[in-house]
Amino acid sequence: MIQKYIFGTYIETEAVVKEIAESVGQIPYLTKESDHVFTYQMGEDDIVYGLGESIRGMNKRGWVYEAYCNDDPNHIENIRSLYGAHNFFLVDGAETFGVFVDAPQKVQFDIGYTEREMMKITIAEGGYVIYIVEGDSPSEIVREFRSLIGRSYIPPKWAFGYGQSRWGYKNEADIRKVAEEYRKRDMPLDSIYLDIDYMERYKDFTVDKEKFPDLKGLAEDMKAQGIHLVPIIDAAVKVEEGYEVYEEGLEKGYFCKKENGDVFTAGVWPGKSHFPDFLNEEARQWFGKRYKVLLDQGIEGFWNDMNEPAIFYSEDHMREVFEKLEEYKSKNLDVDTFFAMKDLVLQTANRAEDYRSFYHNYKGENICHDRVHNLYGYYMTRAAQEAFEHLEPEKRILMYSRASYIGMHRYGGIWTGDNQSWWSHILLNIHQLPGLNMCGFLYTGADLGGFGSDVTEDLLMRWLELGIFTPLMRNHSAMGTREQEIYRFGNEEVFCNILGLRYALLPYIYSEFMKAVLKEEMMFRPLAFIYPKDVQARNVEDQLMVGESIMIAPVYTQNAKGRYVYLPEEMKLYRMRSEADMDVEVLSAGHHYVKAELNETLIFIRPDHIVPLAKAGQCVEKIDVSKLWLLSFIKDGAQYELYDDDGYSKDYNVEAHLTKITVEKDGRVGIDGAMKSECVVV
Amino acid sequence: MIQKYIFGTYIETEAVVKEIAESVGQIPYLTKESDHVFTYQMGEDDIVYGLGESIRGMNKRGWVYEAYCNDDPNHIENIRSLYGAHNFFLVDGAETFGVFVDAPQKVQFDIGYTEREMMKITIAEGGYVIYIVEGDSPSEIVREFRSLIGRSYIPPKWAFGYGQSRWGYKNEADIRKVAEEYRKRDMPLDSIYLDIDYMERYKDFTVDKEKFPDLKGLAEDMKAQGIHLVPIIDAAVKVEEGYEVYEEGLEKGYFCKKENGDVFTAGVWPGKSHFPDFLNEEARQWFGKRYKVLLDQGIEGFWNDMNEPAIFYSEDHMREVFEKLEEYKSKNLDVDTFFAMKDLVLQTANRAEDYRSFYHNYKGENICHDRVHNLYGYYMTRAAQEAFEHLEPEKRILMYSRASYIGMHRYGGIWTGDNQSWWSHILLNIHQLPGLNMCGFLYTGADLGGFGSDVTEDLLMRWLELGIFTPLMRNHSAMGTREQEIYRFGNEEVFCNILGLRYALLPYIYSEFMKAVLKEEMMFRPLAFIYPKDVQARNVEDQLMVGESIMIAPVYTQNAKGRYVYLPEEMKLYRMRSEADMDVEVLSAGHHYVKAELNETLIFIRPDHIVPLAKAGQCVEKIDVSKLWLLSFIKDGAQYELYDDDGYSKDYNVEAHLTKITVEKDGRVGIDGAMKSECVVV
Repeated sequence: MIQKYIFGTYIETEAVVKEIAESVGQIPYLTKESDHVFTYQMGEDDIVYGLGESIRGMNKRGWVYEAYCNDDPNHIENIRSLYGAHNFFLVDGAETFGVFVDAPQKVQFDIGYTEREMMKITIAEGGYVIYIVEGDSPSEIVREFRSLIGRSYIPPKWAFGYGQSRWGYKNEADIRKVAEEYRKRDMPLDSIYLDIDYMERYKDFTVDKEKFPDLKGLAEDMKAQGIHLVPIIDAAVKVEEGYEVYEEGLEKGYFCKKENGDVFTAGVWPGKSHFPDFLNEEARQWFGKRYKVLLDQGIEGFWNDMNEPAIFYSEDHMREVFEKLEEYKSKNLDVDTFFAMKDLVLQTANRAEDYRSFYHNYKGENICHDRVHNLYGYYMTRAAQEAFEHLEPEKRILMYSRASYIGMHRYGGIWTGDNQSWWSHILLNIHQLPGLNMCGFLYTGADLGGFGSDVTEDLLMRWLELGIFTPLMRNHSAMGTREQEIYRFGNEEVFCNILGLRYALLPYIYSEFMKAVLKEEMMFRPLAFIYPKDVQARNVEDQLMVGESIMIAPVYTQNAKGRYVYLPEEMKLYRMRSEADMDVEVLSAGHHYVKAELNETLIFIRPDHIVPLAKAGQCVEKIDVSKLWLLSFIKDGAQYELYDDDGYSKDYNVEAHLTKITVEKDGRVGIDGAMKSECVVV
Repeated sequence: MIQKYIFGTYIETEAVVKEIAESVGQIPYLTKESDHVFTYQMGEDDIVYGLGESIRGMNKRGWVYEAYCNDDPNHIENIRSLYGAHNFFLVDGAETFGVFVDAPQKVQFDIGYTEREMMKITIAEGGYVIYIVEGDSPSEIVREFRSLIGRSYIPPKWAFGYGQSRWGYKNEADIRKVAEEYRKRDMPLDSIYLDIDYMERYKDFTVDKEKFPDLKGLAEDMKAQGIHLVPIIDAAVKVEEGYEVYEEGLEKGYFCKKENGDVFTAGVWPGKSHFPDFLNEEARQWFGKRYKVLLDQGIEGFWNDMNEPAIFYSEDHMREVFEKLEEYKSKNLDVDTFFAMKDLVLQTANRAEDYRSFYHNYKGENICHDRVHNLYGYYMTRAAQEAFEHLEPEKRILMYSRASYIGMHRYGGIWTGDNQSWWSHILLNIHQLPGLNMCGFLYTGADLGGFGSDVTEDLLMRWLELGIFTPLMRNHSAMGTREQEIYRFGNEEVFCNILGLRYALLPYIYSEFMKAVLKEEMMFRPLAFIYPKDVQARNVEDQLMVGESIMIAPVYTQNAKGRYVYLPEEMKLYRMRSEADMDVEVLSAGHHYVKAELNETLIFIRPDHIVPLAKAGQCVEKIDVSKLWLLSFIKDGAQYELYDDDGYSKDYNVEAHLTKITVEKDGRVGIDGAMKSECVVV
């Protein structure tokens, strides 16, 4: 059951798609301390799940989080905001309920930071809506919430293949080289990403003709190899005379303006830039249509970046900075003045003052950016996806974003931003997945291997072994860091096998993704969602249930030869060295130390569950499903519903997409539905 | 056995105290690739221990480390240098041997970073000495190495008490308040630290008379409460007319000079400062004597800081920075220019160019700082300790440093620098302890609760539960972060009990520390050092053997209610809620999930071992040893040698300091030696 409470004059976010009547009377569970503050007294054993993309554990207790989309590449324990603003959380304890604070302004969640057992929600100035979601279990509450916010975005099937990316592929030759290196080693690959390097002076919807003289030709050649090019699009538009997007946007008044009516100018990649007012429907449509220039060159997917929006500096503030620097020039810089000077230069980016200095034209009203900050990336992505509906009505286009707000999950996926080549970020990746799923973000993944910092071969292997299971499986790294394409390292065979396993598992991954979307469920669940009465399972923070059949326990520490795993029930462990080379053992319920060498991926199968394994191919299209190997743990017999479709069309709810696979107690295998694969139990 | 190999004309570091004849012929184990490069092909299961204060795991494989003392407060996974340069490592595998690269210049250890199984040691320009240390086991190799470098520093006994520190105690009233808050709650405390705030404009050996009008009186009052004041001393000396230290140093030529003979000037806390040439014996003596001004005010301990040396900016470079900033003023700052400008201001600190721009007068030679960089903090600390030998010949003075090099371990301890209030830094603390012990640093500890960032109550509790076991047990935090004195939080009783447990354990901690020093052994050992044939023990990275009787397994993850523990043999677990409240259970060898609520410290006792527990007091002096409770796990009977002394004198090797405690198989208890405590088995 969902109750809706309205506080003050709120700004419509369009996060919610279901009509809910307003509830009257006191809001349940929470205590309203003042106009913008709510508290909740947590019990010692309560768990708080949710908040989507954020740092720390699956259980969010013990920190303070701020929902205020932020471009911060330091994903360290003490930051409060990341790129997304995902205001849904779920208390699982003495009382079990969900809360969605629908507010596009900053919202702070102090979950036992100030006081260990006190939750305090503080909403910045302005109205807001709070939804209280009730249900019989955490799973039920999430399903309720998801039905409130609408169906999650579905990408084309090829987007479940592996992608290679790097900020620093500087021209066509670099791209061709990546493709060649993969293909000559028979390494699977479905996409190569174009980071900002492909643009002409970082101008959206342009292609640098010197570096990429024939993007269309390149895209065609790549596609012939089963590889999709996926270019980046930034939020801000370069100020440059003669640049059509800039000129038209300026002429039509589509950019955000300051209070005095001047267009707001800030520095981002291209230097001085303007910010399209994606909240203005007309501007949104205008920007969305611009993607056509790339669609027309054979592009079928994009990633939207810098849309928190990231601001390196505002023109106005930078003037002040230089003035103040002048003052420091002749000083004896001691502790106070030196750090003040450093901060002056360091803290030009993403300043609250800048976010308060420009305005949107939203539903006919002039609204300060600060009050709708968290909608910006959401509405940029909406711009694209709404345009795709017109430009490519029959075809799914890949779209994911860095910034997001709940509601955007209907228009695109997200990647989790500029992480680092740190072991702790594998664990962060694990921690974030269920929270993201709760908030509707199903097509998601981290930059595998880490974006910033230098990777090591073992880190990349271990991270890819987790990435096998995430819908978005992309290896991405930053300019200036160690090159981390998998062919840069000594042990090519291991990398090949890890990717092969992903592709072999793809029917399962895709199937579980699609079922999670269509049934409004999570694909990645904390153990406690499946085993709610298991006290031990409630404390497990480094294992995940993936779909209906699998539990994973990735290795995320360097030099480890295995790890501890908790099994809430008896399971069958497949220790996979490749799609065809594995050990199998049945493990009893309870605690285990499980060996996992660097080349081994652990897949735990639940009792009476099945995981179909196809034969991997070099790209998603070439996966061979004519024969399916069934990983399974049969006690009384199991049934698995396999979803499949052509990967492009949008007729998801068709019976013909489902195939039923059964394994009887006596080992007999049955298959019923569209797929006519031969099935073999392994 | 130790072999000594000399390469080129090297600079004497005085790290080594034992005369060793030079070996001739080819160096064993390592392959000399060129004049400054050595490699070693590691086996898949080799473990590499050592390198003292550095990031990543106990097993150093999988990263590249640079020995080049560095003031970097970002102790994240991808940095290469911390404050210390500890060039001893130990390979434990197919071949087992130790290597000490005695070189005061930069040394790089690529331990499987570039290639997973290849170690590559690269020594910067200049000569160097390599010692190859052999022995029957890792423990034996460490003992050999420690005998080479001489006996570790021993602080006064009170320095094993708990200390409270914060950068930001701004005056006498603040200090008195801290003491009062502890004492009124009966919370143990032995020291309060004075960070840079106590000085007059950050000038060494001055006291700000406005903030601290009577330091001597304050020190006396504190001492009456059993509390020692421990002031900080920085490496650099403020440039200020009329400041005696500056004027005398300048007059006598005791500061480091540039190539042209001008004194080198750089900005640190006080702004423009000079760097005493601690490598010059006369300057060293001069600086050391200066500590007298504080000793005379009743001070008995110090911490030496900023002695990598940390440089915020050099005078010469800052001039260039301002010139270049001028150029950026009128530019359209795009990705290249903007980040270049940011870096210009950000990267003024600790620049290689600055370290190459000044000189030392070392043993009569003029030597570029860069070539002896790693000796600077070592020789500053030596300056102090050598002076103490004259100024206070009968008394141990507490001294620990931030920067260090092997050799300095004879003159002082170290703390592990400016860590953060991060859970991952509890684990880093665990990882560093054995490496530090190998390199001779026994009096050591981390800033408990974390220096930077905001702490939470649970983080502080869990970290203190590890800190119970570290010789240096100090809670320290930075200005601007959340206040983290233990009385700032809700649950005072738990904090009281944690500290109480430390004090009750102090006879054991002190005893194990002293025995480790006197026998040249480690106090904190990886499990594999005790159980070398246990393959599983070799992979344990989050448990430690503490002295001869205890294994610890600290909880270092948020919201955990317990953790996994590996027992190489049957042990008795004492789950301690206070010195007097505990559960006891015997656990079999193997893997266990062990519960540990927030208020519980896990102490595992080895078979036939004893841990004496005294009655805690408010300070070390007040610990009551008239009765000892013996935590023990008796199978055939156990014997424990308890070391104790007056805590000040230097006559360590006296029979009278040892008391033998025995527990027979039938439970009978015996005590023989100086202490006449009543002993009770619990």
